[in-house]
Amino acid sequence: MKKLSGSRRISVPGFKFSGISSGIKLSGEKDLALIYSETPAVTAGVFTTNKVKAAPVRMAIERISSGKGQAVIINSGNANACTGDRGFKDASDISTKTADELGIPPELVYVSSTGVIGVPLPLSKIKKALPRAVKELLRSSINKSAAAIMTTDTFAKTYSKKIKIGNKTGTIAGIAKGAGMICPDMATMLCFIVTDIAVTPKALNTALKEAVNGSFNRLTIDNDMSTNDTVIIMANGLSGNKPLTKKSAYYQKFQKTLSEITYNLAKMIALDGEGATKLIEIVVKRAVTEADASKAALSVARSMLVKTAVYGRDPNWGRIMAAIGYSGIDVDERKIDIYINKIKLVSRGTGTNREKAAKKIFADNEIVITIDLGSGSRTARALTCDLTEKYIDINAHYRS
Amino acid sequence: MKKLSGSRRISVPGFKFSGISSGIKLSGEKDLALIYSETPAVTAGVFTTNKVKAAPVRMAIERISSGKGQAVIINSGNANACTGDRGFKDASDISTKTADELGIPPELVYVSSTGVIGVPLPLSKIKKALPRAVKELLRSSINKSAAAIMTTDTFAKTYSKKIKIGNKTGTIAGIAKGAGMICPDMATMLCFIVTDIAVTPKALNTALKEAVNGSFNRLTIDNDMSTNDTVIIMANGLSGNKPLTKKSAYYQKFQKTLSEITYNLAKMIALDGEGATKLIEIVVKRAVTEADASKAALSVARSMLVKTAVYGRDPNWGRIMAAIGYSGIDVDERKIDIYINKIKLVSRGTGTNREKAAKKIFADNEIVITIDLGSGSRTARALTCDLTEKYIDINAHYRS
Repeated sequence: MKKLSGSRRISVPGFKFSGISSGIKLSGEKDLALIYSETPAVTAGVFTTNKVKAAPVRMAIERISSGKGQAVIINSGNANACTGDRGFKDASDISTKTADELGIPPELVYVSSTGVIGVPLPLSKIKKALPRAVKELLRSSINKSAAAIMTTDTFAKTYSKKIKIGNKTGTIAGIAKGAGMICPDMATMLCFIVTDIAVTPKALNTALKEAVNGSFNRLTIDNDMSTNDTVIIMANGLSGNKPLTKKSAYYQKFQKTLSEITYNLAKMIALDGEGATKLIEIVVKRAVTEADASKAALSVARSMLVKTAVYGRDPNWGRIMAAIGYSGIDVDERKIDIYINKIKLVSRGTGTNREKAAKKIFADNEIVITIDLGSGSRTARALTCDLTEKYIDINAHYRS
Repeated sequence: MKKLSGSRRISVPGFKFSGISSGIKLSGEKDLALIYSETPAVTAGVFTTNKVKAAPVRMAIERISSGKGQAVIINSGNANACTGDRGFKDASDISTKTADELGIPPELVYVSSTGVIGVPLPLSKIKKALPRAVKELLRSSINKSAAAIMTTDTFAKTYSKKIKIGNKTGTIAGIAKGAGMICPDMATMLCFIVTDIAVTPKALNTALKEAVNGSFNRLTIDNDMSTNDTVIIMANGLSGNKPLTKKSAYYQKFQKTLSEITYNLAKMIALDGEGATKLIEIVVKRAVTEADASKAALSVARSMLVKTAVYGRDPNWGRIMAAIGYSGIDVDERKIDIYINKIKLVSRGTGTNREKAAKKIFADNEIVITIDLGSGSRTARALTCDLTEKYIDINAHYRS
């Protein structure tokens, strides 16, 4: 049922990728990804707001203040979180060894980890594999990097788009992993984006924050926030355009394209949520403020009862009404309309008896729930997936 | 695996109960409960904060401001929520008909409903059954009332305790239902308490709020808040003590006993959560403020990953650390200790390698997770249950 991202060739001038098996995953699957920019790149990042942060995240937060980067080394299968002082030393060792192999300064290397919490990294395995990760770097290998950052994901997630800035054409390409929003065992939201568009550090930072806010921050699989969430973008400027600032004529275009990439990657993560059979997009319209729209959308997206109803193909709109009601925003139920795809299930707070027609919609694997609050003019979206027995199975029995 | 509440006889002077089948539930199970005080009683209530409130809840909120009551009529199988103007008329009709049958003023009758949202009440069935509900009223029938308010609950929940106020002995007895914190289909948190202790309206109100705050407000099954949650207490004063005020020597004793009753009913609801196999009690100690302790405890209690880990008998403490980290309170992970029952799993933020010993604990059906934040002196608790495939099954496929 899962939709695979296209297998077409993606490449971005000046960037090389690899994805190999280092032996962290006992299954022998790929578990080490390297993203390398041939020249130092303007770099921005957004990280988990969890107070319990993995060692590599703490290191990345320190380094990103420089606005520069040249490589990201990512391992899956171990989160290097709650690993004490040893965790920091391990993350630092990996960045130094990667920098040595690439012949670049360690401060330009970001380390990212995803997997089980509380278990020290198998450092020697990773260090031993690093030369191979460097040797296998290729412009065309972005899909290998995307595969190597997967945990319980069932497909590799990549999305790219060409963008014209003046007479220069560049590319923005991103890879992501998801499965559980958090999963100390086996998941974390990670996303790495590269572009050859020239952008100033400040503008890149703002553009990334806005893109993340409208995409990954609107995404919930199981309401659990990881200790390792990381989004990093590197812009090497090789397309030769005049570096974009927030005032550039083309900044909005760049921002929109970046948002499109993160939103589509977020959709892929939702579709590939642990155990999921359906992507659910929630659109809240005519709210008084965007914050209200967002709260209501996320409240519905978080509701286990809404998610199980979608799984059970039950157009149980009462659960949607209840989730709007406890979202914390002020609503008048007598003004609320609710649609599933195009079918209007609720008109002014009461049912329209169109549940039979709505039931058929659930054959699709993408469902849009539209909520019209009838109170204002602002809109917001949220993304999630249905909740199934398989989610329980994955998370109850994974480690045993 | 479920623990049944004792079947011992409970009676409270001046209160009568009944529980019958009116035909709302097609299964023929009991679905109409009546609680009656032979004399008007001092009455207090706490209701859902969901902005989408069922008609009977809105009516009860209006009436409770009088501080008086004499009867509560409760139906299960239909929530009478999102039913528009008709819902209000139906709730009003039921209270009038109940009052007529009992020969008391309608303003002293509270109506409460639980079940599917958005479907009009089968009013004629209820009205037809009401005379029988009145005719069958008995002092000894509290268990029948407890059974008639059940939805997906697997056992009836009652708890009572004798209390001595000076030289007078009285009783406080409560019944509750749960299963899902919300379940527009089939559940809602309801609790009704009766006592013959004399209490002033103000003191009763304060005591109830404090009891609810330390019990039902610390309880989460699936993070979904109902449109129908209701807790009502009636105190008829028949024990003959001087009415308790907040300054009475015995007020604290009354308050503590009431809290014990609501906490034990809340535990029964957690143990009987939809699909649950285990009760989980979370105790957060040494927090800077009680609000911090409470936030951290509820964050862990809400975590689907913690709940699935307990179900899978996996002492996966990384999930607990992560849930503390995103609870919104300021924490230093290097000060955190975590215990499952008596086994210390985490010391100063890193693992103790005692997971094997902890695994054995999961054979019990009551698990206590103790989190020592090492930062202050305040404590708070939360109650939840594990999350299983059966929860998904109940909520995905119930209506279909």
